[in-house]
Amino acid sequence: MIRSIDLNADMGEGFGPWKLGDDDALLDIVSSANIACGMHAGDWDTMARTMRMAAERGVGIGAHPGFADLQGFGRRRIDMPVASIANLVAYQVGAARGIAAACGARLRHVKLHGALANMAATDETLAQACFEAALKAAPGITIMAMAATAQARAAQELGCPTAFEIFADRSYEDDGTLMDRRRAGAVIHDPDRAADRVLQMLDTGAIITHGGGRIPCRIDTICLHGDTPDALRMAETIAARLTRAGIAIRPFPEAVG
Amino acid sequence: MIRSIDLNADMGEGFGPWKLGDDDALLDIVSSANIACGMHAGDWDTMARTMRMAAERGVGIGAHPGFADLQGFGRRRIDMPVASIANLVAYQVGAARGIAAACGARLRHVKLHGALANMAATDETLAQACFEAALKAAPGITIMAMAATAQARAAQELGCPTAFEIFADRSYEDDGTLMDRRRAGAVIHDPDRAADRVLQMLDTGAIITHGGGRIPCRIDTICLHGDTPDALRMAETIAARLTRAGIAIRPFPEAVG
Amino acid sequence: MIRSIDLNADMGEGFGPWKLGDDDALLDIVSSANIACGMHAGDWDTMARTMRMAAERGVGIGAHPGFADLQGFGRRRIDMPVASIANLVAYQVGAARGIAAACGARLRHVKLHGALANMAATDETLAQACFEAALKAAPGITIMAMAATAQARAAQELGCPTAFEIFADRSYEDDGTLMDRRRAGAVIHDPDRAADRVLQMLDTGAIITHGGGRIPCRIDTICLHGDTPDALRMAETIAARLTRAGIAIRPFPEAVG
Amino acid sequence: MIRSIDLNADMGEGFGPWKLGDDDALLDIVSSANIACGMHAGDWDTMARTMRMAAERGVGIGAHPGFADLQGFGRRRIDMPVASIANLVAYQVGAARGIAAACGARLRHVKLHGALANMAATDETLAQACFEAALKAAPGITIMAMAATAQARAAQELGCPTAFEIFADRSYEDDGTLMDRRRAGAVIHDPDRAADRVLQMLDTGAIITHGGGRIPCRIDTICLHGDTPDALRMAETIAARLTRAGIAIRPFPEAVG
Repeated sequence: MIRSIDLNADMGEGFGPWKLGDDDALLDIVSSANIACGMHAGDWDTMARTMRMAAERGVGIGAHPGFADLQGFGRRRIDMPVASIANLVAYQVGAARGIAAACGARLRHVKLHGALANMAATDETLAQACFEAALKAAPGITIMAMAATAQARAAQELGCPTAFEIFADRSYEDDGTLMDRRRAGAVIHDPDRAADRVLQMLDTGAIITHGGGRIPCRIDTICLHGDTPDALRMAETIAARLTRAGIAIRPFPEAVG
Repeated sequence: MIRSIDLNADMGEGFGPWKLGDDDALLDIVSSANIACGMHAGDWDTMARTMRMAAERGVGIGAHPGFADLQGFGRRRIDMPVASIANLVAYQVGAARGIAAACGARLRHVKLHGALANMAATDETLAQACFEAALKAAPGITIMAMAATAQARAAQELGCPTAFEIFADRSYEDDGTLMDRRRAGAVIHDPDRAADRVLQMLDTGAIITHGGGRIPCRIDTICLHGDTPDALRMAETIAARLTRAGIAIRPFPEAVG
Repeated sequence: MIRSIDLNADMGEGFGPWKLGDDDALLDIVSSANIACGMHAGDWDTMARTMRMAAERGVGIGAHPGFADLQGFGRRRIDMPVASIANLVAYQVGAARGIAAACGARLRHVKLHGALANMAATDETLAQACFEAALKAAPGITIMAMAATAQARAAQELGCPTAFEIFADRSYEDDGTLMDRRRAGAVIHDPDRAADRVLQMLDTGAIITHGGGRIPCRIDTICLHGDTPDALRMAETIAARLTRAGIAIRPFPEAVG
Repeated sequence: MIRSIDLNADMGEGFGPWKLGDDDALLDIVSSANIACGMHAGDWDTMARTMRMAAERGVGIGAHPGFADLQGFGRRRIDMPVASIANLVAYQVGAARGIAAACGARLRHVKLHGALANMAATDETLAQACFEAALKAAPGITIMAMAATAQARAAQELGCPTAFEIFADRSYEDDGTLMDRRRAGAVIHDPDRAADRVLQMLDTGAIITHGGGRIPCRIDTICLHGDTPDALRMAETIAARLTRAGIAIRPFPEAVG
């Protein structure tokens, strides 16, 4: 049975004068921070500030590359050739590594953002191209991959260190993809229901779908959100419930793959 | 007496659909390429394409960070805090290193671009902050510094591998700074006059100023331009004249500082 | 029978230091210029310069709005809500009108660019939203709509001044859409074949498809390209052949709809 | 004696997913909204949303053009040619007018933002170029000019409708420029002290400087800030104190110059 788990959240999602979410509070809860890399959010100063804050608390620093689309926050699909997306990922992971090094910190993982993540969750060729680019740009990095999707299969195919991820507050379709946010029930708002579900998934070693099905998978990290006051309360509840269940919150080991 | 010299030129200065200069022709002449990093020019695809071309010909690959200003091509001074500029440099050098690695190539040097380079040529604090950021983002990289300026002093202060640079087609003021482009005689258009001057500077180990003065300095690399047909002819002439004088064109050694 | 026709081409497609196509030469051939509005190309200075050149030669000035995607030149589909695209069009048409007014010129028409144009050619709701936004942002403007597509139907539905457009160098599918550029035969390279085809379409008042079918439609303007030396030769050939056939090249009248 | 005054504030300063300030609360206090135009803040959707909110409450809609610098929020000086800045202003004012028209609203005024405003406050040539560009891009618009600065002189020289502006919470130097924010006492934090000062300036028809000097000037509008909870409280206090003093809060008349 699982005795420790990683909690991850997206951070550094401001840009210039703008902030998004309460990074300061979230960094006291999570063990991994996925930090925006300048294309959909996260300019060079925001990146440096967020990485320093994460490093001070021993939170694992990750690159969170997305589409080059500030206005759309990387949530809109952009029809680009796979090779160009791979370059875009290498660019952002390299930039994140550069900023981390300039801050005396170290890049530990990479996780795809927004529309790019969703596209890679159903397109193994795309996922593999993104992960290969990231691994070249930052050798030894751990790939954070959505469990039971094309992302997970691509990472397994590459044989690289991988942290498999489930979502605390999102419902799953029977094929393991996330239910569309626009559908009723897609997002779980009740912290205790979300915590119940997370504990059940860790217990059974499987994703539990909306329809009640089980998709067995390794689970290394749980994605939390922090961009609303509600989300912060949910993060706290889940962390507390995990601790109470005797499951420590700890960054995934460096080479879990 | 000098038996070999590095020739460098700015490249990869297109963006998206746009090209600038004849990189293909220049890469047959120079031994070092300073490649734009996405902020004033050079998107991720342009960077990858240019780095692959450089690597195939054994031309040294350098990052060429500048201000975040596509419309102004990084040629306009922007009044930013030094710490923010340092982050901006770390971001771009990291990104360049990431793209290089994704292409199976390696970043060898860094050279500041445009207004940022000019500002750092007279502001040693700024130059040092930029170079330190670059050295952290890409350990072991060589700093290409404008000879006899605050850039050179900052690099010497840091004790890092440095390649000192002179300009083939620009007149020097008596204090070693470049004459303002808007002044008559600031840019040398005659290839043979430029070649004479380059050979004389290499011969005497000194910058020769507009007024005829000499500023002794180490010279490791000569900056050529390639963005006009004239500039290409000048590059060819200077390369030919150097070869004829028994001076080989070769990348500066990896640790010249 | 048609005694005069408008020739249009995309222009002002540079950005900052970058140029694209030979606007100067094209402006001597066409009667309408579709000028990029800053989002996929065409910064404020490029717009002003191009509009002044067009105004001096009596060439009709049009806004050419596209997706906000410099790196992709507006050629990539971006999955945005229709209302946001309408705002994006109003923004660009307004900006173009502002620059035109600052140059003492006047905006006459609007034509959608790239991926946005292709999407609007098959999505009448999108086309109508874009055209309505343009008409509000610049009252009295003429909509340039791809003949026999959803663009044309949307413009007719709105009852606004409309110039219906055919393409000189692109093959048509049997449903009136443009053949995908990646298919063989999609682009016509032979100037005389293109000219033959244009004259035949004007003669019969119909689009002639790849398969030989005819789609009757009003034709007010012919789209030329100018971004390659070949394209310029084609533009000259078509203009010469039209003149020889007694068809004058003239901007479409201001209220053709 | 003044019986009514305009209160203005900067709004629509978000971008994409990001918000800045409490526009909703401020719109209940002010009579004029200066709306960012996409270059330093304020994408097309944010502009449309803010303009609709302002129009619903009868708040005057203004364009608030700034430098093209999202990361620096238009607060950094950029060394650009005056003609290029004029184009940049025409572009943004035109875009704002386009969005306003698409929303069924109307652009009433223009006010320069951030570093551009500060530069124009001491450079009459620049101020005049910006205002001329704005007046061409939106004929009949009112120029909001910082009272007793080069902005005011430029507007007077042009003879255009002008609203002269003082600042509620900023100290003035003896020459009428704003004291540098980094100096002690530059920003007034106590709402009642700010309100006292505003009433005194309206009463005497003069700017009262830090040193106690008076610079007589017409005052048509008072600038409030709304980007912090404190600023909102100050806005409320000033509005209440004005009302209590029998001075109505009303948009400046359309042609005050």
